[in-house]
Amino acid sequence: MAAVLTPQADDFPRWYQDVLAKAELADNGPVRGTMVIRPYGYALWERMQAELDARIKAVGARNVYFPLLIPESYLQREAEHVEGFSPELAVVTHAGGKQLDEPLVIRPTSETIFGEYMAKWVQSYRDLPLLLNQWANVVRWELRPRPFLRTTEFLWQEGHTVHATEADAAAFARTILHDVYADLMTSVLAIPVVPGRKTVHERFAGAVNTMTVEGMMRDGKAVQLGTSHELGQNFARAFDITFLDAESQRQTAWTTSWGAATRMLGGLIMVHGDDAGLRLPPRVAATQAVVMVAKAGEGVVEAASALAAELRAAGVRVEVDDRVDTGFGRRAVDWELKGVPVRIELGPRDLAAGSATVVRRIGGTKTSQPLASVASSVAAAMDEDQAALFAEATKLRDDRIADVASIDESVEASAAGWARIPWAVVGTEGETLLAQSGITVRCLVRPDGSVPDSEDEPDVLAYVGRAY
Amino acid sequence: MAAVLTPQADDFPRWYQDVLAKAELADNGPVRGTMVIRPYGYALWERMQAELDARIKAVGARNVYFPLLIPESYLQREAEHVEGFSPELAVVTHAGGKQLDEPLVIRPTSETIFGEYMAKWVQSYRDLPLLLNQWANVVRWELRPRPFLRTTEFLWQEGHTVHATEADAAAFARTILHDVYADLMTSVLAIPVVPGRKTVHERFAGAVNTMTVEGMMRDGKAVQLGTSHELGQNFARAFDITFLDAESQRQTAWTTSWGAATRMLGGLIMVHGDDAGLRLPPRVAATQAVVMVAKAGEGVVEAASALAAELRAAGVRVEVDDRVDTGFGRRAVDWELKGVPVRIELGPRDLAAGSATVVRRIGGTKTSQPLASVASSVAAAMDEDQAALFAEATKLRDDRIADVASIDESVEASAAGWARIPWAVVGTEGETLLAQSGITVRCLVRPDGSVPDSEDEPDVLAYVGRAY
Repeated sequence: MAAVLTPQADDFPRWYQDVLAKAELADNGPVRGTMVIRPYGYALWERMQAELDARIKAVGARNVYFPLLIPESYLQREAEHVEGFSPELAVVTHAGGKQLDEPLVIRPTSETIFGEYMAKWVQSYRDLPLLLNQWANVVRWELRPRPFLRTTEFLWQEGHTVHATEADAAAFARTILHDVYADLMTSVLAIPVVPGRKTVHERFAGAVNTMTVEGMMRDGKAVQLGTSHELGQNFARAFDITFLDAESQRQTAWTTSWGAATRMLGGLIMVHGDDAGLRLPPRVAATQAVVMVAKAGEGVVEAASALAAELRAAGVRVEVDDRVDTGFGRRAVDWELKGVPVRIELGPRDLAAGSATVVRRIGGTKTSQPLASVASSVAAAMDEDQAALFAEATKLRDDRIADVASIDESVEASAAGWARIPWAVVGTEGETLLAQSGITVRCLVRPDGSVPDSEDEPDVLAYVGRAY
Repeated sequence: MAAVLTPQADDFPRWYQDVLAKAELADNGPVRGTMVIRPYGYALWERMQAELDARIKAVGARNVYFPLLIPESYLQREAEHVEGFSPELAVVTHAGGKQLDEPLVIRPTSETIFGEYMAKWVQSYRDLPLLLNQWANVVRWELRPRPFLRTTEFLWQEGHTVHATEADAAAFARTILHDVYADLMTSVLAIPVVPGRKTVHERFAGAVNTMTVEGMMRDGKAVQLGTSHELGQNFARAFDITFLDAESQRQTAWTTSWGAATRMLGGLIMVHGDDAGLRLPPRVAATQAVVMVAKAGEGVVEAASALAAELRAAGVRVEVDDRVDTGFGRRAVDWELKGVPVRIELGPRDLAAGSATVVRRIGGTKTSQPLASVASSVAAAMDEDQAALFAEATKLRDDRIADVASIDESVEASAAGWARIPWAVVGTEGETLLAQSGITVRCLVRPDGSVPDSEDEPDVLAYVGRAY
């Protein structure tokens, strides 16, 4: 087969663009920085949404929907927030044929509008914690857009919660980081993320603590895949979110916010894809196996359908490809490109022999198997492939993390992956120096890998590297 | 219990506003005409989405996501379309701190941007039909907003399809009308809709045929709950959607579009609610039954949990209400307001007697039942209640439809419900006359209730009435 993609080693960003186009994941939109998510890409997003939504509900949050358009004055109530987001805002000045009295911004995130209503809904300590989430589109005018990773408009979920105490807010933000985001990334997306704390410089505008889960792409660069923020009392003060405690004393509440976006799709592609295309972890694959009718022949389509039904009964998400008018090789390359974990090829000769050819995208094996055992072997392959991709990504990441002791070494290590370095060696000054080489501190962790409560804890380590 | 809602007979619109607030379905947003959908309202929307999405996928459409912001020039390519939507547009003129070269409109609907890309994706007859759908927010600047029914921003799905022939497009638009929309409304929302054809005057801007499913509210007014449009070749010509047919001749395609929105929630409330609050058809209720711990007592909470587990195993979506700090009466009224089909009350005395009190929201019966039989009786109640609400709504609607023979009689009948009148008696002139009394032609049907292919067919009947 002719190679259809730029090899990763030649030009990784171009490989990425090639995959997006050839696997029919996304197109560029008409407005710079926007994108059209095509059916195959959107089906992956739907799988991620379902898995993430279930985890968000499991920790007790309920879904809501707030308006897209936010009065400009709302943003101005939290000083750091408006400063951080102002350069990225899209502004509606005209509507219904008239100029508006007050310009409206398209939400870049919704802390302010949630704040306004949470203040109304929270009256007593009995109303707390208030745990809300919304699935929505947001707009941030990006200077350097890249499909999925950084787009002017993106889809995400944003959680917003109110708590009676700082400790409760802190604990909940960590539950989201670990039980929701890190669990989704590792167990569904097969991405071995590093959960950690952001430096003051990298914090969300208006937060007192931003935590992140960072993934390493196959070119060694980082992608921030989800963030969870402690907002302290900054938004509670700006929006007057107060409550009467058990002693009927008025208290100011504590809030958190947290989000994960279509950016995860970009991470999924860049963590697992290879020179032949996507490789999808079975848990996120919309199609886990395809039964290909290799060639027309008596009873072949029927046998393929029967096999698909067996696979479906075994819990496998399966599709039948009977487009025999299109060349077999072309179709096989296409399924490879699309990263479907298992291809089952069935032709007249296979059928006569009572067997089928099972081709694994992950691992690359190709074996002839008795028809009767195909369903159970493919079902078993799902767990194997999920584990194999996770193990491969973990090894690749670990091989590219270098323990270093100086800024210079950090710069050197960042050419291939990440450097791990004592935060005391870096500090705010080192962070500025690294930025000159396009390198950022991705996150801070304790020596045992847990997330520090402060960057001033002794022995804190920094992961530094380049990022998308 | 004190009546908390304005009685429907006194002021139906005020009853509606009361229910929205008291059942915690929605709040008004900060910008006029926008709304905040609260957790209880959003959970209903999620149920509708799941049921509608499954039906859309069952007819072969696949989900995608297109950008929110559309270049103004796109809208201008289809003359009727831009004329119809111009007065309702919200326009982004500034972004990223600069004035934009070309203003961007927030999508009021997405025919134009889908058209642009469908033209790229469709090359050959083999690519047809192309069946796409998206779940999205849209903005239309409304002069007379009303929560859910008519809001400046609303959530919906919009389907966009391309076909090789007019007949195929026509058939698909009807499949959506009947198998997707009418089926959802009748079998899930328990709303006995009338599917019909819109008059030329009521057509979607740019369509050659608009079909609708119309529901009657409890005050006799109509709500258009979903529309399916044949767009002819209007958008295909404007966006150059062409394909090579089997003889390699270039042909212009035929397109359709169709949508259903959060407006369905408004319809659901207004079709089934009564003076005590919502009444939810079990199939759309996020919570179908609640086990109320009437009073604290040894083993009561445990027994309530055990009963809930039994109900869950019987396929019932159930919640436990053990907020014994809040008065029982207040909680009971709240569940009534929220329209949960079944309330199971359990206190120490019930437990000692091995029974529970089962209160049905629909029908209003209150019976003491042996604990062991509660789960099976509640599970059976789900189908009974679903059928009962549908039967009640059907009777109420049929009682309020009057067969009339003149415009004057139509105006009279529209005070209480709908008039059914030969379309030949109304015509375009009659439509203008009716409009002077705030009455519209809701749809046209054949005498046997099927949807006419043209308003010029003999014996076509018109349903006319007031509408939200």
